[in-house]
Amino acid sequence: MNPATETSLEHAERVQIKDLVRHHVHDLRNCINCANMEASLLGDSVTDPDMLESLASIRQQMMDMDKLASSFAKNFAHYPDPEDPTD
Amino acid sequence: MNPATETSLEHAERVQIKDLVRHHVHDLRNCINCANMEASLLGDSVTDPDMLESLASIRQQMMDMDKLASSFAKNFAHYPDPEDPTD
Repeated sequence: MNPATETSLEHAERVQIKDLVRHHVHDLRNCINCANMEASLLGDSVTDPDMLESLASIRQQMMDMDKLASSFAKNFAHYPDPEDPTD
Repeated sequence: MNPATETSLEHAERVQIKDLVRHHVHDLRNCINCANMEASLLGDSVTDPDMLESLASIRQQMMDMDKLASSFAKNFAHYPDPEDPTD
């Protein structure tokens, strides 16, 4: 994005989008961490190989979602932050 | 957004953002569905109340993430779709 072409409307919208993305990723990570904690608790009580495999798969999905969240947020890394009026 | 103030740059950027959001939500839902399937498999083998509670909590987190994804996508529902050049 060329700053010379950025209107104040665009700036305000980008600030809003970055804020939405940041909150979304934060909320996702809360859920991922809670689910991981429960999967970890379950793992302490499980010995059956099939059940351990299902638990490992759940934790893998949580890792994948964490990566998805990071990768998604990176698309907006260059967007201006609310607290930075010079962006 | 007043269409009269929208430049082609803004339009292209919004189309791109909507596409990113759509892919992100789709990928998240894939992970959520996989984790739910594994949690369901585990639920068939578990009888211990503490373990059932942990499983229920994992499934609740998956439901919460699904809601987060829907709610996040709604912020961009009014953005133009790639296939609709008149937006």
